[in-house]
Amino acid sequence: MRISELSRESGVPIPTIKFYLREGLLPPGEATAPNQARYGEVHLRRLRLIRVLTEVGGLTLAAVRDVVAALGRPEASLHDALATAHTALQRQASPWGPELKDALVETDAWLESLGWDLGVGSPAREELAGALVALRELGWSVGPDVFTAYATAADAIAERELAFVQGTPSPEAAVEAAVVGTIVFERALAALRRIAQERHSRRRFR
Amino acid sequence: MRISELSRESGVPIPTIKFYLREGLLPPGEATAPNQARYGEVHLRRLRLIRVLTEVGGLTLAAVRDVVAALGRPEASLHDALATAHTALQRQASPWGPELKDALVETDAWLESLGWDLGVGSPAREELAGALVALRELGWSVGPDVFTAYATAADAIAERELAFVQGTPSPEAAVEAAVVGTIVFERALAALRRIAQERHSRRRFR
Repeated sequence: MRISELSRESGVPIPTIKFYLREGLLPPGEATAPNQARYGEVHLRRLRLIRVLTEVGGLTLAAVRDVVAALGRPEASLHDALATAHTALQRQASPWGPELKDALVETDAWLESLGWDLGVGSPAREELAGALVALRELGWSVGPDVFTAYATAADAIAERELAFVQGTPSPEAAVEAAVVGTIVFERALAALRRIAQERHSRRRFR
Repeated sequence: MRISELSRESGVPIPTIKFYLREGLLPPGEATAPNQARYGEVHLRRLRLIRVLTEVGGLTLAAVRDVVAALGRPEASLHDALATAHTALQRQASPWGPELKDALVETDAWLESLGWDLGVGSPAREELAGALVALRELGWSVGPDVFTAYATAADAIAERELAFVQGTPSPEAAVEAAVVGTIVFERALAALRRIAQERHSRRRFR
């Protein structure tokens, strides 16, 4: 299809498509004339992926670029693809100072006490430690075990998710499932928790 | 304490404190001279709360204002305070068009089939429907039951959380626990899921 049709089908404006092409987020089309190219299903799928990553995942374009690059390396280990998704989802640097370092030692020790083997340099570990610092800043005298029920739930979910990823038919599908699953199901889980909070709140307080 | 000391203690610059005072996010200090006021523990606590809401929760100042207003109404129902926290956490409007409306009907019917009684106008329900649309945009042929394991986990967590809120000693503490808990533990749960994904990924793929 031509770029105008690609725009219509995807809902992405032509100038944005051209920008993605220049930035390498979208692979070039097949040249049909000096100033014309033909695009296909692969371009449409990519545009939809970019839309989900930016609008659902809240990713910056730089983070989208990293994710797209990971999808182009199905030969890389799935473990590395997942790490890319996690890094892309990472918020800006933690606002906390020296308290964070102490909290990180505590949360790591606690995770190990749960039997979780920890990888190096995981951005999510800092985010967990940051949540502990935030609670303490607000005057809650708590340790990492305030998160115990969340860890149990998260572990059961993650185990299912990785089994699903391993069951996908091709390396490409597995990498996409890992990346997309991390992002979209994180939003779904957060939404379900809030819906469930509302229902239990209505029961108790109304 | 003086404003300079409040700034030092909280780590928030004086111009920012003055801005919060003008905007009503921070209650005025006790006037000690025409151009001087004394601040106390309540101001320090409020500044820490604003920091957590903006930097951990990613809230806009407008959303912070709503949350702060809810904290000032401990006589309001806890159910309403929780709704305020949910609305404040809500992302911008969903990027999806008519597909969203259809998905919302489907996800609502599915939640009801789980025995969840649904409130009206919950922003989280749209977010869940948006996650379903996102998966379909990416070519996953799935229905709302793709979220079943997440719903089970979220419901168990929310039930504990509301029991905790109900057990807090005062209406003020309950409202703060509802608001802070929703925001900080959402980040913690997301972080724990990613840490757990990494550990299960390492087990399977390395």
